[in-house]
Amino acid sequence: MKSIRTLIKEKPWVGWLLFVATVIVVFLLGLLASEITERRAEAVYVNKPKVEISDYEPRNEVWGANYPKQFQSYMKTRDTSFRSKYNGSAFIDELEEDPRLVILWAGYGFSKEYNQGRGHYYAIKDIREILRTGAPIGERESPMPNTCWTCKSPDVPRVMNEVGVAEFYKGSWEERGHQIVNPIGCADCHNPETMNLRITRPALIEAFQRQGKDVKNASHQEMRTLVCAQCHVEYYFKGEGKYLTFPWDNGTKPEEIEAYYDETGFYDWIHPISKAPMLKAQHPGYEVFTTGIHYDRGVSCADCHMPYHSEGGQKFTNHHMQSPLNNISESCQVCHRQSEEKLLQNVYNKQKSVRETRFKLEDALVKAHIEAGEAWDAGATEKEMKPILTAIRHAQWRWDYAAAGHGNSFHSALELSRTMASGLDAVQEARLLLARILTKYGVEQPVTMPDISTKAKAQEYVGWNMEKLNRQKEKFLEEVVPQWVEKAAQREKEWGVDRL
Amino acid sequence: MKSIRTLIKEKPWVGWLLFVATVIVVFLLGLLASEITERRAEAVYVNKPKVEISDYEPRNEVWGANYPKQFQSYMKTRDTSFRSKYNGSAFIDELEEDPRLVILWAGYGFSKEYNQGRGHYYAIKDIREILRTGAPIGERESPMPNTCWTCKSPDVPRVMNEVGVAEFYKGSWEERGHQIVNPIGCADCHNPETMNLRITRPALIEAFQRQGKDVKNASHQEMRTLVCAQCHVEYYFKGEGKYLTFPWDNGTKPEEIEAYYDETGFYDWIHPISKAPMLKAQHPGYEVFTTGIHYDRGVSCADCHMPYHSEGGQKFTNHHMQSPLNNISESCQVCHRQSEEKLLQNVYNKQKSVRETRFKLEDALVKAHIEAGEAWDAGATEKEMKPILTAIRHAQWRWDYAAAGHGNSFHSALELSRTMASGLDAVQEARLLLARILTKYGVEQPVTMPDISTKAKAQEYVGWNMEKLNRQKEKFLEEVVPQWVEKAAQREKEWGVDRL
Repeated sequence: MKSIRTLIKEKPWVGWLLFVATVIVVFLLGLLASEITERRAEAVYVNKPKVEISDYEPRNEVWGANYPKQFQSYMKTRDTSFRSKYNGSAFIDELEEDPRLVILWAGYGFSKEYNQGRGHYYAIKDIREILRTGAPIGERESPMPNTCWTCKSPDVPRVMNEVGVAEFYKGSWEERGHQIVNPIGCADCHNPETMNLRITRPALIEAFQRQGKDVKNASHQEMRTLVCAQCHVEYYFKGEGKYLTFPWDNGTKPEEIEAYYDETGFYDWIHPISKAPMLKAQHPGYEVFTTGIHYDRGVSCADCHMPYHSEGGQKFTNHHMQSPLNNISESCQVCHRQSEEKLLQNVYNKQKSVRETRFKLEDALVKAHIEAGEAWDAGATEKEMKPILTAIRHAQWRWDYAAAGHGNSFHSALELSRTMASGLDAVQEARLLLARILTKYGVEQPVTMPDISTKAKAQEYVGWNMEKLNRQKEKFLEEVVPQWVEKAAQREKEWGVDRL
Repeated sequence: MKSIRTLIKEKPWVGWLLFVATVIVVFLLGLLASEITERRAEAVYVNKPKVEISDYEPRNEVWGANYPKQFQSYMKTRDTSFRSKYNGSAFIDELEEDPRLVILWAGYGFSKEYNQGRGHYYAIKDIREILRTGAPIGERESPMPNTCWTCKSPDVPRVMNEVGVAEFYKGSWEERGHQIVNPIGCADCHNPETMNLRITRPALIEAFQRQGKDVKNASHQEMRTLVCAQCHVEYYFKGEGKYLTFPWDNGTKPEEIEAYYDETGFYDWIHPISKAPMLKAQHPGYEVFTTGIHYDRGVSCADCHMPYHSEGGQKFTNHHMQSPLNNISESCQVCHRQSEEKLLQNVYNKQKSVRETRFKLEDALVKAHIEAGEAWDAGATEKEMKPILTAIRHAQWRWDYAAAGHGNSFHSALELSRTMASGLDAVQEARLLLARILTKYGVEQPVTMPDISTKAKAQEYVGWNMEKLNRQKEKFLEEVVPQWVEKAAQREKEWGVDRL
């Protein structure tokens, strides 16, 4: 075979060809080098702060100037299309979906309106619009205390810092309406100087303290769960001052929290039909999650609800907190090698199994309330009714503990199934006692059940004047809320934004 | 530095040292080569059959001559020390452990004696010794039919081949006592010519056929589950001929099998206290396993209960079928990277959760049987009692479906929890109806419950003369069984062993 040197000597164009090819390759290498340098520069550029963020800055868009990727992904919590994808509805009205809930919560705000949760972005809008907060205009107060704002906004730590924690909780909900206007966001979980995760809500810190633990000792991975546990937990408003308190002193299992409430004699409301002293579970997501296998394996909330995402050569924590089912490839599939379809099916199977027991328990609870009402009407005594009311209280608490949290039936399906089976046992024992009492007082059985086939019928049965409640709310939204918004805008305008 | 050549010229002993070192290294290399050759030879040697195995060879030790590793590991099913390690007892008497079972199975063999299962090696010994098979001597027949032998021995396919399947099942249990003597073993699952897995029991093949499936299409991995599913399933003895049948025509979920039994009007026995037409679940291990996550992920029974093991350079399937908890490193840890301690704790937590609901259901079932007995005594009518007895039948079936299988509460904890919650709901509905009837007939409530704090007290309450049953069994074991053994030994001696 000829050498290249000989070849070039014989055919000079081969030499030119090699020369041109070399020029092209070198040019492309130059382009690649430039691309790499540019990406590096972008990374440096992005990490250079543009504004100075103060310790209690509640405006997410101010933080967003320095952290655009995190802020822009956070803003995706506006998107509610995932729900319509799977549920065929943009906004599930839980009471319409399951009117039994209206009976279970009769006499309590939740039977007025209860909707499927949605993104953090809507926290302020939704708390203003929901019927549960009432329509405080003029002399009329909200049925809720200021404590109710605690989880809704990064304005909360700001105002707490100004007025003190105990003082913050006191008074009626409308009093702080003009102060709390920015939806859940950056300042709730981040230290503005180091961007480290931090706990801003006293209730979690205090609950840890009462258990002899210091939340400051938590690792970063633990903090990726604990910042969520500031709010996604069971809590109650303690005493006259409505002091926000986590009922964890005996532990976080449903029976342990129940025992805590029993010992302190606490109840959220007296059920108007059965007269049972009821407990309303909030959303014990953290408590349930910590009994499940993902927590056991060291997985944090953020690992699945805020998985890492890459954009423009940069990896960052996606602040579009959402159901991992809407982002299986970046959440579940980081560890699990099954197909999206298979993983979805696994989750739905768990939910289906838990829901079956849940509905059995709901049916029995509805009957128990109404049978208890009949027993009172027929002349049953306090003494006769006491064990029944306690059993109803416990059974509904266990039901609510299981039903109220978001994602519970995935986070720890077996624990929920166990919890609701124990609730089922308790409520059926109550109904056994009721059967004897009803027979004793000559009430024919089975007791006739009301028609609660729709939310409207159920709400009429429990005595709500929905038309009036809705009208009042509308007026409140038209007349009061704009004043709050105006006052807040004025305040924030005065602060300015310290752009560097 | 000096060259080696110069060094040797100056100090001749260095040369000798190098020479000796070389000799040693070469010798060791020779040893290594010999070791490799020997291992290869061993592999060839082991795979060379020493005896010709006929198609229906029931003697495991004959197969063992050709497959010593598999046979020797199978023989470890004699070992019961694992149970004492975890339970502190070599042999759990389930009725002593939980005397409620005596009430649930009153009038049925299981309330006489029910022990924790143990290794395949004991299959024949245990079926002879258990009180459930009675003490057939002379004119007295066993309460069980020959069908009862079906899962106990590789003598079964041999005799079925001789007399036909339907004929095999007919007649009283003692008739085939001399034919069925070798415990569950090789021929039950293996083709002696190819050693491929095979299904030898007609009931599984027929159940698949009725569902329009052919078990012959199963992959090897599926067969590693299906050979177990020949026996570790729910079945019943159908009709006069006591034909072994899997009740899978509607599906294998508890409600589907229940519907099958309801449609055919089948019952195992009439409960002597409540008069309910009862179902006894056998051991629906396969049915429950197929609802769990391990099956969903393609894991077979053998993967965990017979994991691969290495001995003498050979990898083979360990035929010491046992709880994976006794061999976590070779079973669970092949896939799971957690510590033994952690994995054990995960399993125990599941069991604990399921057991809690199980015990609630048992308590309610005991009460329901006894309350139903009181209702009959007080004069309740057939019509009044019918829905109650159906509910008791269903509730106890669901309890038994969950409780009877080995390892169920690990294999599919959530499904069991759901199943037992539905049982709890059913039995409590029965008790509600009972409460009304009892009140109607003037029976004071709560009904007084008998003292069933021990197995002896419970057995006395349900009317068993245990002393007599035990005496009869002893006599049977002394007088009848030795004749069976003698007859079988004679037969096998005539066969000889075709050693090559």
